Amino acid sequence: MTGVAALPGTATLAEIGEQAVIATLTAGLPPAADVLVGPGDDGAVLEVAGPLVTSLDVLVENVHFKLGWSDPADIGRKAVAVNVADLEAMGARATAVVLGFSAPPHLQLRFVRELTAGLHAECAAAGVSLVGGDVTRSRDLTLSVTVLGGLEGRPPVLRSGARPGDVVALRGRTGWAAAGLAVLSRGFRSPRAVVEAQRVPQVPYGEGAAAAQAGATAMVDVSDGLLADLGHVASASGVVVDLRRDAFEVPEPLQAVSAATGADPYDLLLTGGEDHALAATFAAGAVPEGWRVVGEVRAVGPDAGAGVLVDGRTWPAAAGFDHFGAAR
Amino acid sequence: MTGVAALPGTATLAEIGEQAVIATLTAGLPPAADVLVGPGDDGAVLEVAGPLVTSLDVLVENVHFKLGWSDPADIGRKAVAVNVADLEAMGARATAVVLGFSAPPHLQLRFVRELTAGLHAECAAAGVSLVGGDVTRSRDLTLSVTVLGGLEGRPPVLRSGARPGDVVALRGRTGWAAAGLAVLSRGFRSPRAVVEAQRVPQVPYGEGAAAAQAGATAMVDVSDGLLADLGHVASASGVVVDLRRDAFEVPEPLQAVSAATGADPYDLLLTGGEDHALAATFAAGAVPEGWRVVGEVRAVGPDAGAGVLVDGRTWPAAAGFDHFGAAR
Repeated sequence: MTGVAALPGTATLAEIGEQAVIATLTAGLPPAADVLVGPGDDGAVLEVAGPLVTSLDVLVENVHFKLGWSDPADIGRKAVAVNVADLEAMGARATAVVLGFSAPPHLQLRFVRELTAGLHAECAAAGVSLVGGDVTRSRDLTLSVTVLGGLEGRPPVLRSGARPGDVVALRGRTGWAAAGLAVLSRGFRSPRAVVEAQRVPQVPYGEGAAAAQAGATAMVDVSDGLLADLGHVASASGVVVDLRRDAFEVPEPLQAVSAATGADPYDLLLTGGEDHALAATFAAGAVPEGWRVVGEVRAVGPDAGAGVLVDGRTWPAAAGFDHFGAAR
Repeated sequence: MTGVAALPGTATLAEIGEQAVIATLTAGLPPAADVLVGPGDDGAVLEVAGPLVTSLDVLVENVHFKLGWSDPADIGRKAVAVNVADLEAMGARATAVVLGFSAPPHLQLRFVRELTAGLHAECAAAGVSLVGGDVTRSRDLTLSVTVLGGLEGRPPVLRSGARPGDVVALRGRTGWAAAGLAVLSRGFRSPRAVVEAQRVPQVPYGEGAAAAQAGATAMVDVSDGLLADLGHVASASGVVVDLRRDAFEVPEPLQAVSAATGADPYDLLLTGGEDHALAATFAAGAVPEGWRVVGEVRAVGPDAGAGVLVDGRTWPAAAGFDHFGAAR
């Protein structure tokens, strides 16, 4: 598509048409040695070595982001980040993403340009190539991202591999995005750090592969909240995960939000989702640098079935996020 | 998830929750040797040989289907079919799909069950495994499907490979889905064959790989209309594609729809989209059995630039479908 750069930013998608939207989303993509066929044909062709790991996430306007809270660039970045985090949690190295872009016809080109800038920036940060996708009309802006990657010769790190005696460790932040949501929901824009965390998660890129290399026995990314996501590990592994409350420090912005909202800061840390930290289990002594040990894995027993405890007890507010609003 | 089969079909997604929706969508999936890790972890792991081919399609309620026109099973089938067609058009063999399922909370479980039946049936017909995905809330039912496959040692068949002297051949139907749309739009339900074609395309599974094996020089699937999609081949290859009107037969249901609506049946055949036939170019004499030769490839010249002609002339109504409604 020639000339798309010359179109005015105020032009709507209805005015410029589908091909110009595709041209905007794919303009200036850097070449990558493993991308044999990029955007523009019926499919993309990638060089992959060994087993392929894939995951898909859909981000829907007013469900995963709000246009009033996030800049277009934030939305583009978040769509890539949350998806690559899933591959990190498999111990894989992400190499490519495929994008479904659905938007209302009245959206302006400048919005797509800014979203594209964020999308491309996060792809660069994560080391992945945008290789293709689909563009379609919709009522609500919706981004569907599929990520592809490889295991570099290692076995995948599943949720089911945690063993009694392992330690539980965390890489990345929890509670920040939830604190940001609490702030934004009340109409505030600060503390700025948690608002930014809600807009774009800081995924610890490369740390999933490093954890796999170090021998992680099980791993998840924290999308629904630490207790909820470790609950998946506990039930898939048939173990008790027991966290130590005093292993967590309450960072200053979370203290501020807790003080302002009356929330327990540990509720934020333990049940807040959307930060996409990595939580993994390791044999004691095998925890890689930069990970914080926050608990241990125990066998189920007469006192406790498979599940997550904090200091040996059930955490009172341990509910994850349900997309359809069902009680858990 | 135990017990999801026992839930009443009238229960809403809000009542049963996200995990029950996932359990419904993935219940009873057949095992597949190349699926090393299926649904239920952070990502799926697949065995792939050689370069990977991937494509993504998003189907949005009231854009790609209407709930009043299609059964839930049709929608599930269509989502897989249109996507696998893209891999066929690359000459690839599809092996797996990843699903993004976005639906309103008031949707009933029985709808998901019926959609799942169609989804699984079409996966079986196409020879692909459903390996994972994402479930989320949305206002409009939206299915995002990413297909993955391999090339079985062949190079991909691109849009850019058509050469002067090649012939153009077609495998599958055109005009049927458009005729069905014309009928449904007027409030009718017959001829039944075209209505069914609008609901679920009949993708010629395996014929893309067969065409590649036979030496197809370029290929597309016909999603936007034969003239529009061959237009992509013509411009990517820098050639003139000249179709012969009398190479097409007007099937009986298309005659009936044309007679009832006053449309030119050749408009349906040449510009109707959504049947996902395969259109390819071959060296003369290399056309595989079952394909219909409908035209030839010529060099651009002083009389004609890269593009598609019918009997040497521009077809008057040669506009494809634009998702944002832009004029072409």
